[in-house]
Amino acid sequence: MTPEEFRRYGRQVVDWIADHQERIESYPVLSRARPGDVLAGLPAHPPERGEGFEAVLADLDRVVMPGITHWQHPGFFAYFPSNATGPAILGDLLSAGLGVQGMLWATSPACTELEIRVLDWLAELLDLPARFRSDGTGGGVIQDSASSAALVAILAALHRADGGTAGRDGVTRRHTLYISSQTHSSLEKAAKISGIGSANVRVVDADPLTLAMDPAHLDALLAGDAAAGALPVMVCATVGTTSTTAVDPVPAIGEVCRRHGVWLHVDAAYAGVAAVCPELRWINDGLAEFADSYATNPHKWLLTNFDCTAMWIADRAPLVGALSILPEYLRNQATASGEVVDYRDWQIPLGRRFRALKLWSVIRWYGAEGLREHVRTGVRLAQDLAARIAADPRFELLEHHPFGLVCFRPRWDGLPDAEGDIATMRLMDRLNASGDLYLTHTRVGGRVLLRMAIGAPATVGAHVEAAWDRIREEAAAGP
Amino acid sequence: MTPEEFRRYGRQVVDWIADHQERIESYPVLSRARPGDVLAGLPAHPPERGEGFEAVLADLDRVVMPGITHWQHPGFFAYFPSNATGPAILGDLLSAGLGVQGMLWATSPACTELEIRVLDWLAELLDLPARFRSDGTGGGVIQDSASSAALVAILAALHRADGGTAGRDGVTRRHTLYISSQTHSSLEKAAKISGIGSANVRVVDADPLTLAMDPAHLDALLAGDAAAGALPVMVCATVGTTSTTAVDPVPAIGEVCRRHGVWLHVDAAYAGVAAVCPELRWINDGLAEFADSYATNPHKWLLTNFDCTAMWIADRAPLVGALSILPEYLRNQATASGEVVDYRDWQIPLGRRFRALKLWSVIRWYGAEGLREHVRTGVRLAQDLAARIAADPRFELLEHHPFGLVCFRPRWDGLPDAEGDIATMRLMDRLNASGDLYLTHTRVGGRVLLRMAIGAPATVGAHVEAAWDRIREEAAAGP
Repeated sequence: MTPEEFRRYGRQVVDWIADHQERIESYPVLSRARPGDVLAGLPAHPPERGEGFEAVLADLDRVVMPGITHWQHPGFFAYFPSNATGPAILGDLLSAGLGVQGMLWATSPACTELEIRVLDWLAELLDLPARFRSDGTGGGVIQDSASSAALVAILAALHRADGGTAGRDGVTRRHTLYISSQTHSSLEKAAKISGIGSANVRVVDADPLTLAMDPAHLDALLAGDAAAGALPVMVCATVGTTSTTAVDPVPAIGEVCRRHGVWLHVDAAYAGVAAVCPELRWINDGLAEFADSYATNPHKWLLTNFDCTAMWIADRAPLVGALSILPEYLRNQATASGEVVDYRDWQIPLGRRFRALKLWSVIRWYGAEGLREHVRTGVRLAQDLAARIAADPRFELLEHHPFGLVCFRPRWDGLPDAEGDIATMRLMDRLNASGDLYLTHTRVGGRVLLRMAIGAPATVGAHVEAAWDRIREEAAAGP
Repeated sequence: MTPEEFRRYGRQVVDWIADHQERIESYPVLSRARPGDVLAGLPAHPPERGEGFEAVLADLDRVVMPGITHWQHPGFFAYFPSNATGPAILGDLLSAGLGVQGMLWATSPACTELEIRVLDWLAELLDLPARFRSDGTGGGVIQDSASSAALVAILAALHRADGGTAGRDGVTRRHTLYISSQTHSSLEKAAKISGIGSANVRVVDADPLTLAMDPAHLDALLAGDAAAGALPVMVCATVGTTSTTAVDPVPAIGEVCRRHGVWLHVDAAYAGVAAVCPELRWINDGLAEFADSYATNPHKWLLTNFDCTAMWIADRAPLVGALSILPEYLRNQATASGEVVDYRDWQIPLGRRFRALKLWSVIRWYGAEGLREHVRTGVRLAQDLAARIAADPRFELLEHHPFGLVCFRPRWDGLPDAEGDIATMRLMDRLNASGDLYLTHTRVGGRVLLRMAIGAPATVGAHVEAAWDRIREEAAAGP
């Protein structure tokens, strides 16, 4: 494709995206495609001759769009938001257009140094501890996901705990990892990947009401495991769990970790970015004193398109120790000088895209002010919704909702628990089939709750109100 | 950013990229930035108020561009190519614009089904075995890198070898992994990550001339390790090594693997895509009979921007067995039905972008014909260069150069080996400092070789000729 052709088709694609943004409410949020529908619309064999880009755009509309669940739709309240905004998309486009590879500082110095600076900026915006900044022993890095951040944290923690023995000789003794029943499933996945084993993931009790990890039980488990000869590797505390945005007591957990000499990773994938607002900075409690590593996802609620997980580490030495290998073909003067950061040693893959560009674009376009406003809007809409639910006697609200997620269920008066849960799931399916909104569910104390996560940039009060009206009407129709 | 603003700034960014493509030869290939230069040009603190996108573009030119090493420059001959073409960039832009997340089939069915179809297309284009297609027990998936593909292959292999014991209880016995000295460093990294340990990576002899893995030595190592109580997990054969594009004898290695019941992963990260050309399909020898998993990178030589590693597996069951975890908040009817693929179970992270769009755009824009032409151009330019080097008595050529990489060195007549190697490195540094070309190096048999990898879409014969003239002149100036 020549530069002139790129100019022409590039404008078409930009217009296609702008049009799509303008007409997104005309699509059902949740795709109505059944398994195999999209496959059936695609030719079985690749083309022998090249086609014009118009053909790609036509098939995008005809075949792909009916199979899209619209994460950017203002009625998308499922999972967590996955903000994709203009400046982020354009930052990503610049990254694709430059086509550079930042595995080493030397392979494009700006790719590394812009990332260092932007992660320092974000640490400042979130008021994160000074030891996470690049001018000390620590630093920030962009990972593809909080899953990968957790895996990388485990590897660094393991390296610190055993001086690199497991990386060299394998995980030959029992290593243990500490989570609660509310911790994200990626931690168990990381235990499987890292050779620790899912059976060595110790599940600390969570308070039945707050769903927060119990530090006393953690303390007991750590003591018992160490006495039994295990090597405790890492504790993962969560600020804003996936199920209900529960917040673990990081200061108390941190004290336990310090006493046992165990690495503390804080997974704030969804909620961490809320600390752009001073009134929400209580979520950082304990980080400065105790956190060895921390992750939050600008690609959820901070206006930056996936993938962009911001991870910070207080001491980069065990991370690099766990992940660095230097074959001849990657040797270069800058690396040898020790003056530079080579981000390949901070992540699982070798290659890396220039993801800092999109975060840089977002922070500059919105400014601290704009970021705060976006988070505040989500919180305000969620609080308004929660107030309506609390005021409706036919619904039960989960009391904890400090961010953009509200969990609730119809009471289904008279129905036994199990049947009520089935009715709630059926209600959700009917709502999602409407195409106007998309909710997901969770279980707390065995009971099904609907999750309504607010925070898409396109969502305004009217969307939340319409969704709530719809939910009430649909629930009023009966189980 | 409103859709109208996106339209306006989107056009500016498209034009910026097209302009950049047109003027790319005016930049030095290798950035002249010194450590800290880019950092020094960036404000220490984030902006309080949002800025216009013009400010971002202005700073891109002022601060970022001097720190860019231009992977798309026609004089970029370092590492391997990292093709970023128009249709790929636009496919990626569509993915960012849609902003969907394909962790589950249900979270955007088209994201999964287009990937299934496009990977089947690519398997057909490369003439890969039928058992890698989605209609059997196997299937294809896009990973971020060949590093991650290798890690995922190890986890699947481990799951098959021990029935899931390590995933559950941890890597409690000695597991072994087989590579050669020429295998990519990501395999050793994966051994560290997966808890196998770098000391349990067994290095099979490579032939000193062809640098190909010795199947007889592999056989002996496997027998000895098993007899000593280790559990051999996986053998990684390489088609086109990073150092010199050496090709391991896959059929003979495969027979050894089958005899020992060990998983065979074939890493064809760079060279695999060359099989679009029938005359290069010899690189697939042994895949149909023996390969359990296979990876090649369209993001290197097949016109698709990073990240896009195509990975196929002959049996998806052990892969899903190794990586699947289903928390309540991810449960859905489609997953429960067993009718769909949930790609989160095929990869390390949970979340995933819609990367199939860019590969789809590339295959449709170029067609099979265009893909073959691109690979053939790279091979032809490399063969022409090799012939010139072979004809120049002042240079020594590595005989093996079937793809786009040519390795060579000046003879530096009269200089002892060690001094010759220093002279070769100095020559490379002078050439790279010129800004006109960028080469990297490797070592074979202890001696330094220059690597010149041809395959950037912008590179034509004149660029290779100019580079070779420059190399000769610079070498003629003496050590």
